[in-house]
Amino acid sequence: MSGKVWLVGAGPGDPELLTLKAAKALAQAEVVLIDDLVNPQVLEHCPAARVMRVGKRGGCRSTPQDFIQRLMLRYARQGRRVVRLKGGDPCIFGRGGEEAAWLEARGVCCELVNGITSGLAAATNCGIPLTLRGISRGVTLVTAHTQDDSEPNWSALAQSGTTLVVYMGVARLGEVRDGLLAGGMRAGMPVALIENASLPQQRECRSSLARMQADALAFGLRSPAILVIGEVAASTALELARSA
Amino acid sequence: MSGKVWLVGAGPGDPELLTLKAAKALAQAEVVLIDDLVNPQVLEHCPAARVMRVGKRGGCRSTPQDFIQRLMLRYARQGRRVVRLKGGDPCIFGRGGEEAAWLEARGVCCELVNGITSGLAAATNCGIPLTLRGISRGVTLVTAHTQDDSEPNWSALAQSGTTLVVYMGVARLGEVRDGLLAGGMRAGMPVALIENASLPQQRECRSSLARMQADALAFGLRSPAILVIGEVAASTALELARSA
Repeated sequence: MSGKVWLVGAGPGDPELLTLKAAKALAQAEVVLIDDLVNPQVLEHCPAARVMRVGKRGGCRSTPQDFIQRLMLRYARQGRRVVRLKGGDPCIFGRGGEEAAWLEARGVCCELVNGITSGLAAATNCGIPLTLRGISRGVTLVTAHTQDDSEPNWSALAQSGTTLVVYMGVARLGEVRDGLLAGGMRAGMPVALIENASLPQQRECRSSLARMQADALAFGLRSPAILVIGEVAASTALELARSA
Repeated sequence: MSGKVWLVGAGPGDPELLTLKAAKALAQAEVVLIDDLVNPQVLEHCPAARVMRVGKRGGCRSTPQDFIQRLMLRYARQGRRVVRLKGGDPCIFGRGGEEAAWLEARGVCCELVNGITSGLAAATNCGIPLTLRGISRGVTLVTAHTQDDSEPNWSALAQSGTTLVVYMGVARLGEVRDGLLAGGMRAGMPVALIENASLPQQRECRSSLARMQADALAFGLRSPAILVIGEVAASTALELARSA
């Protein structure tokens, strides 16, 4: 008998932002591997499964990637239905593509289940429209934390005219600011810093490109957090309403 | 008694990609306004509601935006629980922010419910990882169809190093190509053209930047479709597996 692995996006934190497909995958799972950033409340959908925590926070060393992959492989080869739960979407900075490829190459059937990515929920919950006619015709999701120490092309991003949503940026606010300023973005560009997006403990801090590092420090901003950079980041539900 | 409006993302097409929160909003709705691009199968969650179709396809004139907003307002003022169902996510090219602002300005309580955006599901269902370590460190969602006839900054986007996901681009493939080539993107850059993302009738065509217009014509590509442009667009589940 052959098992199967579902690589499932658990969404940004709010357990109700799980998809029906994800809930269904959980309900039939025998083994569930859950990442650190996933809200454990979603485990209510898999009361009978064996649950294993395999956290792997950016920067910190915890369960190594290789070990997690081998664990999925072992259970699948035992014929088990395995769900790997990741925060947000498995294909947006989640290595879902790599893990699926690794498993498929070893003959294991694999299915990716999309989730609501955290940057999107963070903005929506603060009243920020990521796209807005006449102001922002697109949105770029980018990570500031890279394993190979290379930088995104901040200069091109500054000129793209899209709203920037930066993941894993708390420790690199200075570099992000400098790169965008060098690309010609104005110092006063609005920025929203959002901690624990979509959870009851969500906190937000409004700032500007030039001031965001100092403001984040004063605010005590902690990972995981999302930065939204662009004209729309000045919006709040209330301000939007006033201008409508 | 005061009503309320939920602006709900119905996801990309697959009715199982609806969130639990969206299903819950539908279950308690008294009036549901549904867009053209939403899969009517999701209406199984609101068997008792009054359902009204308020399609508004890009380019074609159907139900005017103003009329839809006044309809929501009227029902909310009658004390009804109103759900407005939009394809994908209400805040990614969905005008969710504008509609929420308009309603809040008129004293109507409004809630946005995120959905899986079509570009994300399109890529995942074709085996394309939008972000991939060492290859694509980000993704830009952008629309090629604009009401004010202005162009996105294709040149900056070409240099951004992010995977580009273009919505509403079928009629503007030539302009998109020319803009990206002018920005220095190579003619052979892989492109995936995906029609009816996440539905059983999904079709995909692989091409390159230089050839995509001719290939789309030969393929008979029709709206709604998503373009994925970037190195990762050459990936298929199988190719990923071979390289893993």
